[in-house]
Amino acid sequence: MSELAVRELLALDRAAQDLLFRAARTADTFTDEPVTDAQVAAIHDLIRYGPTAYNGQPLRVLLLRSGAARARLLPYVSSGNRAKTATAPLVAVLAADVDFHERLPELYPHRPQARDWLADRAARAEQARFNAALQIGYLLVGVRAAGLAAGPMAGFDAVGVTREFFPDGRHEALLLMNVGHPGPDAWRERLPRLDATEVIRTL
Amino acid sequence: MSELAVRELLALDRAAQDLLFRAARTADTFTDEPVTDAQVAAIHDLIRYGPTAYNGQPLRVLLLRSGAARARLLPYVSSGNRAKTATAPLVAVLAADVDFHERLPELYPHRPQARDWLADRAARAEQARFNAALQIGYLLVGVRAAGLAAGPMAGFDAVGVTREFFPDGRHEALLLMNVGHPGPDAWRERLPRLDATEVIRTL
Repeated sequence: MSELAVRELLALDRAAQDLLFRAARTADTFTDEPVTDAQVAAIHDLIRYGPTAYNGQPLRVLLLRSGAARARLLPYVSSGNRAKTATAPLVAVLAADVDFHERLPELYPHRPQARDWLADRAARAEQARFNAALQIGYLLVGVRAAGLAAGPMAGFDAVGVTREFFPDGRHEALLLMNVGHPGPDAWRERLPRLDATEVIRTL
Repeated sequence: MSELAVRELLALDRAAQDLLFRAARTADTFTDEPVTDAQVAAIHDLIRYGPTAYNGQPLRVLLLRSGAARARLLPYVSSGNRAKTATAPLVAVLAADVDFHERLPELYPHRPQARDWLADRAARAEQARFNAALQIGYLLVGVRAAGLAAGPMAGFDAVGVTREFFPDGRHEALLLMNVGHPGPDAWRERLPRLDATEVIRTL
């Protein structure tokens, strides 16, 4: 299939395809332009409609805006990620609420007993991580939908960040994400992607 | 903020916001209209650009098209999900390749030693699940970008499906997803979503 044929098979217009996936990139540098609370609220208002199991919505977002909060994070960030995390306009700690099931009688009202099916903490934590990761996928799309660049980072001490920022014992830090407008030399050459033949099989 | 203000804060146009999130819904019924291989390829071509840690791309997609393949799946599906899974135009088993690290010298060429950092299988499986879940988030957006409805389902025996369809021991089934055009009474009333104040904190 030609590139044009592929693009035309989608209902999403070409500009949106580019904004969200084709032209969008993980940014390593950012300008000074701030990311406002209103922009964050607009992103959340869009992506909160993405589905999760039992409508449980376990993702929680901790925005580090103050210099003091940022300074508490940096010791847990890998050396390669530290400079950009120190200077990005906004840094988000993305976490799962392991006790998301407490809200199910309200969020999944037609089957309130779902809360009791999730009584086992270890099984629930697995579900919380998985569904929060789905929501992080939606969030990344939402950041790009706001015209911003995301810089997701797995290179950090998740146990340390969980202890530092979520001492309540009910959350697990999963990923860090820098957010802002891309700065100079914001990205490397695009890395290769797997072909459909390597990813998709049919039975 | 008014709904209009929220929508206007995003760079993504309003029709695309509706297509991907606001008007899109999880479908419980589908029409007979098929989902073609070309549509699936176009969805993959869009969402494969979504980022993953080490560019590892652990998501694998098994499409069940034949009646025989569908029949092998149904015993592992929860009773509430069985009828729609039997009749959806397309059913996808979404899985993580736990040995995704073998491809890293090619996918993450500037740091080929990343493969060796992932030598521990249990830690690698956790990364595979997490990053495949991110990619499932992108995939769900991509299905909607193609003008189709997705029906993700967590209600199935994942261990059984893994054993049935991935006997190689290197994959883990994570989620099932029906795909098609929504049929009659395709959805229930929308379930409540958490407010930004319940999800986002600032330090």
